[in-house]
Amino acid sequence: MSRFLSSKYDELVPYVPGEQPKDRRFIKLNTNESPFPPSPLAVKYAAEAARSCQLYSDPELSSLTDAFCAVYGVSPSSAVFSNGSDDMLNYAFMCFCDGDHPAAFADITYGLYSVLADLNRVPYTVIPLRDDFTIDVGDYCGTDHTIFIANPNAPTGIALPVIEIERILATNPNNVVVVDEAYVDFGASSMLKLTEKYDNLLVVGTFSKSRSLAGARLGYACASEAIIADINAIRYSLNPYNVNSMTLAAGIGSLEDDEYNRANCSVIIENREYAAEELKKLGFTLTDSKANFLFARHPDFSGEQIYSRLREKGILVRHFGSERIKDYNRITVGTRGEMQELIKCLKEIIGQ
Amino acid sequence: MSRFLSSKYDELVPYVPGEQPKDRRFIKLNTNESPFPPSPLAVKYAAEAARSCQLYSDPELSSLTDAFCAVYGVSPSSAVFSNGSDDMLNYAFMCFCDGDHPAAFADITYGLYSVLADLNRVPYTVIPLRDDFTIDVGDYCGTDHTIFIANPNAPTGIALPVIEIERILATNPNNVVVVDEAYVDFGASSMLKLTEKYDNLLVVGTFSKSRSLAGARLGYACASEAIIADINAIRYSLNPYNVNSMTLAAGIGSLEDDEYNRANCSVIIENREYAAEELKKLGFTLTDSKANFLFARHPDFSGEQIYSRLREKGILVRHFGSERIKDYNRITVGTRGEMQELIKCLKEIIGQ
Repeated sequence: MSRFLSSKYDELVPYVPGEQPKDRRFIKLNTNESPFPPSPLAVKYAAEAARSCQLYSDPELSSLTDAFCAVYGVSPSSAVFSNGSDDMLNYAFMCFCDGDHPAAFADITYGLYSVLADLNRVPYTVIPLRDDFTIDVGDYCGTDHTIFIANPNAPTGIALPVIEIERILATNPNNVVVVDEAYVDFGASSMLKLTEKYDNLLVVGTFSKSRSLAGARLGYACASEAIIADINAIRYSLNPYNVNSMTLAAGIGSLEDDEYNRANCSVIIENREYAAEELKKLGFTLTDSKANFLFARHPDFSGEQIYSRLREKGILVRHFGSERIKDYNRITVGTRGEMQELIKCLKEIIGQ
Repeated sequence: MSRFLSSKYDELVPYVPGEQPKDRRFIKLNTNESPFPPSPLAVKYAAEAARSCQLYSDPELSSLTDAFCAVYGVSPSSAVFSNGSDDMLNYAFMCFCDGDHPAAFADITYGLYSVLADLNRVPYTVIPLRDDFTIDVGDYCGTDHTIFIANPNAPTGIALPVIEIERILATNPNNVVVVDEAYVDFGASSMLKLTEKYDNLLVVGTFSKSRSLAGARLGYACASEAIIADINAIRYSLNPYNVNSMTLAAGIGSLEDDEYNRANCSVIIENREYAAEELKKLGFTLTDSKANFLFARHPDFSGEQIYSRLREKGILVRHFGSERIKDYNRITVGTRGEMQELIKCLKEIIGQ
């Protein structure tokens, strides 16, 4: 750090993303990427867009918005896009959190929430999950907090049904409830349609996982027109051309080729169920994941041991050091072949 | 705006980017884009990168950093990249401005500075340019402010020489001096080399203009290792994968094909000088622009009149309504053909 850095960041601990090894020798099950390439149409459109990158991208994001609304059935004034959903989450912290509206989120959830709260110097309440890592919905009812819920949650994969989210929305009429649906397309219920009913709902999503576009960086938000207008005010002030032309084009291609992505999600769900069964046979305990990852611990091996031994064998998974989940590893669901290799290596580690 | 928006933004006036007409019927001389497409190598690399966008982009930005350092002769730990230079400017406001270190910038300069200052709720001092739109360097010496200087300045195109920037750096040893070099490649002197000498210098630049990559969104910063570490702490906290894979690849291609971009810059400089001479013949007064735009007013026509009549004739230029510069228009330098069409239309408007 330099001697010039503002003292407001004295306590800041930056978010640490998962390892991104450069050489690809690993089977990479550590950052919840898709094992499938982007839709060929997304690739084609992006390549075409590259040729006219001397021009700024469209700050109004019109074509992408139209393609999105055609697939998701929302109105154009209810959607906005960002440079990955991390940027959208930051917009939400900027817009809807302050001393009068502290943030609230679970103790075990996406690690960026607390970093963004610190960065924006927003007070926040951490709400512990139950012992089994489920959310006690009652904890989120009738608060004066801006609520952030990852649904399905990360790294547990556990999802709340629509009726439970509705209970939170209905009992927090004066607070924004942010539902982060990064992993929704692998078997959970989306709350998108509820944006028409609740003006305090902000649904955030991403093209990274189910649309195989992590490297393109494309996040979205859906909410009431007024909330989207707030986000646009911040977006225009920070970086009016926040989504580049190639990503805009890739996003349109992905939406036009929706069937491709749906088919990939189905395969990933099948592979998840396959891997979950095999892990159980090996003695692992798992949460009920509706995401593209599993969250597993073994009674005889520490999370760190499993992580390290898999790494030696060329498989990267994600281990978090925090106390409540240090026995677990988060394992991204890859291809069937990758899952078979994972199980084979775990058998060797466990000695079965 | 929604009833949920934090009251801290009650006064926020979002930045208004130049018009981006969707149909391209216009000769677009309003947003300082390059008239030339990106380097074919940049396009090729970006298209290749699109195919593996299921993986996250490299948060360490290693390959791009290496390619950049090979061209610019700086060390890898002295450079960092962002989603356009607007994002980098925001990082600078976040890192180096607060109540103890207010910002300072000219009254006539890039409009985003004041927006970012407001957004970050940073106090700032606006320093008027002289009547001829030049900077009085004395105004920037020995301040306790974090200084932002666009060099060349926008929308005037006027540049300070190295010796004057050194005077500012030497007399502000405890403040960061941000030199925004978005337009430096069209005839001004870069301060990049001074980052080795002054630990308070932060040079910000962009691939948008001289590298024809506005739509790809790629900004950079060079500074002391400590300042770059500060920016990386914020970058990792906000959005660790802030530069997407296609843009990373396009940037590498652009750097490897440096000659292509240099040749385009030379043509733009020639076209600027041609257009400046022709405008003078028509009675226009111009600033001494070292950028890829001209800043011109006519004694007999208001800035608004020139803007509107050019628009009717299918040419978009940028008119700013603020009092000191309302007589002027900022005219992006395009191809020779576009400059000839501009002069032809202006002759019709002026009646010569």
